[in-house]
Amino acid sequence: MIELNYSNMMEEVIGANGMAVNMLEGMRGRVSGLHGQFSERTLKEFAFLDLPGKDTSEIRRIAQEVRNDSDAFLVLGIGGSALGPRAILEALSPLHNLKQGPKIFIYDNVDPGTMRHILSVVDLKRTTVNVISKSGSTAETAASFMVLWDRMKTIHGNNASKRFIATTDPVSGALRKLATEEGIRTLPVDPLIGGRYSVLTPVGLLLAEVAGIESQDLLSGADQVNNACSDEDLWKNPVYLFSILLYLMATEEKRGINVMIPYADSLKYLSEWFCQLWAESLGKNGSGMTPYPSVGTTDQHSQLQLWMEGPEDKVITFIRVNDYGKDITIPRVFEKYESMSYLSGHGLSALIKAEQESTELALAKKGKPNMTISIPAIDAYHIGQLFMFFEIATAFTGLLLNINPFNQPGVEEGKKYTYGMMGRKGFEDRKQEVEAARKKKTRWKV
Amino acid sequence: MIELNYSNMMEEVIGANGMAVNMLEGMRGRVSGLHGQFSERTLKEFAFLDLPGKDTSEIRRIAQEVRNDSDAFLVLGIGGSALGPRAILEALSPLHNLKQGPKIFIYDNVDPGTMRHILSVVDLKRTTVNVISKSGSTAETAASFMVLWDRMKTIHGNNASKRFIATTDPVSGALRKLATEEGIRTLPVDPLIGGRYSVLTPVGLLLAEVAGIESQDLLSGADQVNNACSDEDLWKNPVYLFSILLYLMATEEKRGINVMIPYADSLKYLSEWFCQLWAESLGKNGSGMTPYPSVGTTDQHSQLQLWMEGPEDKVITFIRVNDYGKDITIPRVFEKYESMSYLSGHGLSALIKAEQESTELALAKKGKPNMTISIPAIDAYHIGQLFMFFEIATAFTGLLLNINPFNQPGVEEGKKYTYGMMGRKGFEDRKQEVEAARKKKTRWKV
Repeated sequence: MIELNYSNMMEEVIGANGMAVNMLEGMRGRVSGLHGQFSERTLKEFAFLDLPGKDTSEIRRIAQEVRNDSDAFLVLGIGGSALGPRAILEALSPLHNLKQGPKIFIYDNVDPGTMRHILSVVDLKRTTVNVISKSGSTAETAASFMVLWDRMKTIHGNNASKRFIATTDPVSGALRKLATEEGIRTLPVDPLIGGRYSVLTPVGLLLAEVAGIESQDLLSGADQVNNACSDEDLWKNPVYLFSILLYLMATEEKRGINVMIPYADSLKYLSEWFCQLWAESLGKNGSGMTPYPSVGTTDQHSQLQLWMEGPEDKVITFIRVNDYGKDITIPRVFEKYESMSYLSGHGLSALIKAEQESTELALAKKGKPNMTISIPAIDAYHIGQLFMFFEIATAFTGLLLNINPFNQPGVEEGKKYTYGMMGRKGFEDRKQEVEAARKKKTRWKV
Repeated sequence: MIELNYSNMMEEVIGANGMAVNMLEGMRGRVSGLHGQFSERTLKEFAFLDLPGKDTSEIRRIAQEVRNDSDAFLVLGIGGSALGPRAILEALSPLHNLKQGPKIFIYDNVDPGTMRHILSVVDLKRTTVNVISKSGSTAETAASFMVLWDRMKTIHGNNASKRFIATTDPVSGALRKLATEEGIRTLPVDPLIGGRYSVLTPVGLLLAEVAGIESQDLLSGADQVNNACSDEDLWKNPVYLFSILLYLMATEEKRGINVMIPYADSLKYLSEWFCQLWAESLGKNGSGMTPYPSVGTTDQHSQLQLWMEGPEDKVITFIRVNDYGKDITIPRVFEKYESMSYLSGHGLSALIKAEQESTELALAKKGKPNMTISIPAIDAYHIGQLFMFFEIATAFTGLLLNINPFNQPGVEEGKKYTYGMMGRKGFEDRKQEVEAARKKKTRWKV
């Protein structure tokens, strides 16, 4: 089970920068109200809570086809459609492409360099492409899909559609329509589930199964968190506590930057996934917090100086791993070098755990608020737990902030300029606006 | 040549959130004084400015040996000793390990999982290990060095030392001493050059040459920036302008978060390298800004919502690429789908550039300060330019803030607790402190 240790958030432990117990007690009323909303599913977007009960047989069947007939599996998607799958892949099958099974590539950009490099190392004859888009009209995903479709047509002719899988809306949208017409295999994503809450749908689960990861384990972990975090009493509900502490730190203490630092290389993208979820859900109405991706011990040599002695604007969340699996012992060599020999005989896991605990304590001693989420091990079950933990926490925090954690109105404006520049009908005035701005700019060029 | 376009930082363009020309004019006196410090090298740590003139023949010679006798090249280092090499590798040889030449691994942690995975895919008989540490006493690097030394001894016996290269202080420190005793090849790093300013020393250049990247091109680019950015007039010096604008935005406008968003997948780690440089150099005395790593277009689907509608605490710096190399044209397919067909006929590079410009404009229209650094192409020369540009900017901004940009006192405290827990002599009291804190913590556990 996930454990939350929040002692270093409290004034009793870290002094004046910490939270008082009565501040949290004062939230009881609001928590109770929001808890009711969750348990009664008052918003239709709470649908993400019910994902753990879904049947995965179709996902597993299609993944098996891919494993049988492909040497490469190329995901086209962006935002949550890429970060979720990537978080799963990096956490549960690190260095995947140097091992057995289909190599996996995730193309979440329109960078021609990356596309060239991917095309130079895969054999399209033995590649399956998974296009992930609710609507099909996301420009980046559409562009790369069109490129791959054309190339697959050249190679496979009328059989090209067999090299694709579309993960999309069950009924509407261009991609659904196109998949039906062309005979492309599909997997559905509930339209009520936004990209950043979609990791436990076919968006993430198909890649998991292709990589040899049990999707059912991910769902079981998520389900466990759903059940274990259903207590209305905030002192007994780690998800609510996590949310309330960050909410109060941001609103009462002006600590608007949340660092997420797992102590494991393989959780780097889980941290990035969390940051997308948190940023896009909560950054609205001039409010929101800035989630900051990090990884330990590495970033102790990068960000720690700033946390320790920089502005008082951060809260640090550690993710601690209790069991790193088969350990590697630091051998008895260089014994006469005192600055190295003290390490001999310890496991690497003892060192990484000691560093995590040391950093936690060093921060606490300086009065810097921090908390620690511990997981027993990095496996599908516990990664599933973390996904659900952070999804509930994000939605809950959004409601605390009185904002809708399920939309993203702020990204539409830029898209319209892009449509204009790419010649999409109806956006001609946008093109003119870009060109006008461009002329104005040049006078400032150095 | 790098170009800085800062129109969207100015009140004339973005309104009240922008900078007034006279604010910048008011900095002339300070800039002139600091400019004198740079040109007269008043601090010994300005040594990094003179790196472009260094001879690289020994680096090239050793790299050639590695290329001749190794299938894998494993770098052990952390912080600047890892981020610099990684930024070079990802920018200039993307997907390197799926191509020709020695595979390259950078181990910058003490995660036993990562070490296991690396050991499972390399053949130590044909591997060269590059240990990077000024002192040799960095715990993470020492631990991994000890593990590799022991394994290489088992395989190569007395020839084990031939499988190592130590990049370290030219005279002092445990690693220098050990390398001399054991007959390990070495490359020197000037003790005046801190890890985060070391990318243009053998720290970054050896990996570059092993990967088939011309180190001389990196240095030539850096040299060009040194010369081109030597004008005392802030309006003619893009590095000073960049620094002053960020400094004024942080100190006068409370915009303390600097997002660095290159529009190229391969510059993701350049952004992370910048963040380490900026964070560890400037996060001191309760001041400093928080650099934020990002990559476009990807993070438009992750962070843009927060930039557009979240708190007024950010400045966005775009890195725009003018030429992405060989382009990929979006083909004429799916013509009846209006939400996709408008893309047909454009290159992916046109789309990524349109998105960059659109995002810039959408932010400006909402009064969000942003600026754009343009580079002609992603090659060694221009990456070298960026390295030197940001190193000067960081040092300059530190001096503007009246802080020493070359030390990192805040990271020492945590190290002492780790020494205590790992049983290093003289740190016994630290161990007790950790254990006392641990007991106190449990009461808060959920």
